[in-house]
Amino acid sequence: MILVSVDDHLVEPPDLFDGRLAARFADQAPKVIRTKDGADVWTFNGAIIPNIGLNAVAGRPKEEYGAEPTAFAEMRPGCYDVDERVKDMNAGGVLGSMCFPSFPGFAGRLFAAAEDKELALAVTRAYNDWHIEDWAGRHPGRFIPMALPILWDADLCAEEIRRVAALGCHSITFTENPATLKYPSFHDDYWDPVWHALEETGTILSVHLGSSGKLSMTAANAPIDVMITLQPMNICQAAADLLWSRVIKDFPGVRIALSEGGTGWIPYFLDRLDRTYDMHHLWTGQNFGDRLPSEVFRERFLTCFISDPVGVRLRHDIGVDNISWECDYPHSDSSWPGAPEELEAVMAGVPDDEVDKITFENACRWYQFDPFAQRAREDCTVGALRAEAAGHDVSIRSLDQGRFERRTGTSVTDMTAQMNQKVTA
Amino acid sequence: MILVSVDDHLVEPPDLFDGRLAARFADQAPKVIRTKDGADVWTFNGAIIPNIGLNAVAGRPKEEYGAEPTAFAEMRPGCYDVDERVKDMNAGGVLGSMCFPSFPGFAGRLFAAAEDKELALAVTRAYNDWHIEDWAGRHPGRFIPMALPILWDADLCAEEIRRVAALGCHSITFTENPATLKYPSFHDDYWDPVWHALEETGTILSVHLGSSGKLSMTAANAPIDVMITLQPMNICQAAADLLWSRVIKDFPGVRIALSEGGTGWIPYFLDRLDRTYDMHHLWTGQNFGDRLPSEVFRERFLTCFISDPVGVRLRHDIGVDNISWECDYPHSDSSWPGAPEELEAVMAGVPDDEVDKITFENACRWYQFDPFAQRAREDCTVGALRAEAAGHDVSIRSLDQGRFERRTGTSVTDMTAQMNQKVTA
Repeated sequence: MILVSVDDHLVEPPDLFDGRLAARFADQAPKVIRTKDGADVWTFNGAIIPNIGLNAVAGRPKEEYGAEPTAFAEMRPGCYDVDERVKDMNAGGVLGSMCFPSFPGFAGRLFAAAEDKELALAVTRAYNDWHIEDWAGRHPGRFIPMALPILWDADLCAEEIRRVAALGCHSITFTENPATLKYPSFHDDYWDPVWHALEETGTILSVHLGSSGKLSMTAANAPIDVMITLQPMNICQAAADLLWSRVIKDFPGVRIALSEGGTGWIPYFLDRLDRTYDMHHLWTGQNFGDRLPSEVFRERFLTCFISDPVGVRLRHDIGVDNISWECDYPHSDSSWPGAPEELEAVMAGVPDDEVDKITFENACRWYQFDPFAQRAREDCTVGALRAEAAGHDVSIRSLDQGRFERRTGTSVTDMTAQMNQKVTA
Repeated sequence: MILVSVDDHLVEPPDLFDGRLAARFADQAPKVIRTKDGADVWTFNGAIIPNIGLNAVAGRPKEEYGAEPTAFAEMRPGCYDVDERVKDMNAGGVLGSMCFPSFPGFAGRLFAAAEDKELALAVTRAYNDWHIEDWAGRHPGRFIPMALPILWDADLCAEEIRRVAALGCHSITFTENPATLKYPSFHDDYWDPVWHALEETGTILSVHLGSSGKLSMTAANAPIDVMITLQPMNICQAAADLLWSRVIKDFPGVRIALSEGGTGWIPYFLDRLDRTYDMHHLWTGQNFGDRLPSEVFRERFLTCFISDPVGVRLRHDIGVDNISWECDYPHSDSSWPGAPEELEAVMAGVPDDEVDKITFENACRWYQFDPFAQRAREDCTVGALRAEAAGHDVSIRSLDQGRFERRTGTSVTDMTAQMNQKVTA
């Protein structure tokens, strides 16, 4: 088995911007500061962004999951140190990984919010250069590079897509819904330069759950479990929004990845698309020519799962060329370091060629990622990587049992309070 | 085949409140008025509520679907006349039907909005009496009666649940999410009297898609197809909200129907519930004892579909005792009058005993509905009912082709404009 994950996360190290910004931006660069409660938080443009616990729990006991802001010293180094990350990947049998950003937001909206657009642009480009050179570039063949978009100017965004493509980066992390972030929606021609640039460079628009800035929440006093349950499937909103948009019809080269969205709900969704088309297109004016919306979906959307028994059973309804695997390291939903065992159980009975498509081939094809150019294929398997990692400690380690006792009964309100508790710098 | 539908809709006839309100409320009673554009709209408490086209399109060509307000004369009489409705049911092979309200909103929030709470209560009770006596009661054995709740006072609501239960009504139409309607959420003990009353009377809480007052919309200029696609699955929010709530744990007799929510997405959802529980309960404090959330779901939630090939294939994952059929007459998603043929195709290969559960037995058991007390079973089949309806015209009839030409390219904004165009009284 070979594993390439299309959805992992990196925690940005404090020195990310060192030497990457012009001197005149030095004072305004994003910085890590220590709060009086001992958490390390990023600051930029007047905002404070904690690294919350749930986003960096790899290797911790489940009792200690939670939303408290943490310090770098409280995280597994693989969260923020790419050399350590590769060791963790090896120990988990993971060959390749695409890492979404943390503190800038999935679509870089923290940077976009700066009124000084020169600063915003400088910071975004510096981030992308760092990601491509110092994160993905440090271990060739191990990372699918990914870049932040420029939300406030579609022409600049198109330019950035072309710039990073020339550096080998064919994945842009984008918002599920620009409208909820107060930018023009997917139905506005504002974004046309971006669609042209994506087509021209073969770059994938990777939209991650939660990237609309609107989490799926029912009520402030709802248990946090409600929100956790609903997040992945909520990406169906972006899928429907884009599928019915003119983007799909007018820009045949645009392809979209639904990141961390799961797969088991998709066969129902495709049937719903087709029924909606059948019942309504005569008055809504939708027109896919001689094809069905479900066929169009299979051409244009990549899906993924961590471990989804329903999706595996229904893989031919989803499209076996449209499913990829994700690890979600170091978030709380991750199957690291036991992903190979979990996958083997969930893929029992799936023919080898289909397993390969799901575990790495689809990811490599969609994202133009060729790990075998750097490393012999026989050195890329779970077994080979784990042999390389021999001795690397992946045992579950408690940080401080006592700190976490008060958490039971957590609601959205409680979680927000936890997040706010330690962020006062 | 015997068909009992757990989700249809009635358009309220203009004489609904005649003779049902005390003289002092006569001036304030909801009334139908004719707008200058020729639509019939309901008015109450300063609000104007059109009967929009999509909600009453049974028997119309698909080209003429749309959001324009209509007049009673433009609708199929089966929308608002119960005698005609039964003829349409017969012609469609449908034995039984549960009819959700239209102009008061699925949870009666129009009535609840009246500042004069005596008026609100009088109108709600009058509506419920009319539904039970003059709609469902006029054709015994053909309708599962359903009542509006009282949102602004949980004690009064509990009292109304008991009052209508004594009249044979065991279904309350409720909101998916009271919090979005500015009432206490499902997690607030405010509703405890309601849960007690439901348990005591064996009444089902029927939550219909869209009843939160918050439709699943992505952007104002999104094509309307986006919204149509997303509505059913959006009910997963109510399912998660209730499943993780204390209602399920503290009130073991409370059972919920997810009305018009579809079924094919549910196996994924159940797996997601169980994974969320496994990964997170140690810090969130959730506790279902020795059971999994998916098992609890199967005990407490009834699902339904119009025609859902994925749901039928996955029926054992959902729970074959938890799936019921719906017709959705006279809405635009309805399969009337061809539901029997559509169902036969989608249920091909399903054993007869499972077909029976899905097409009528589950509905009858959950809602305490016994049509065979009124009518011999052999007279209840699709074939027998259609024979009774011989000669009843169900052909597709165009109303006015010309009026509808401008509709193509409809977005949420266009639709709102269509709705507003004719409502000026």
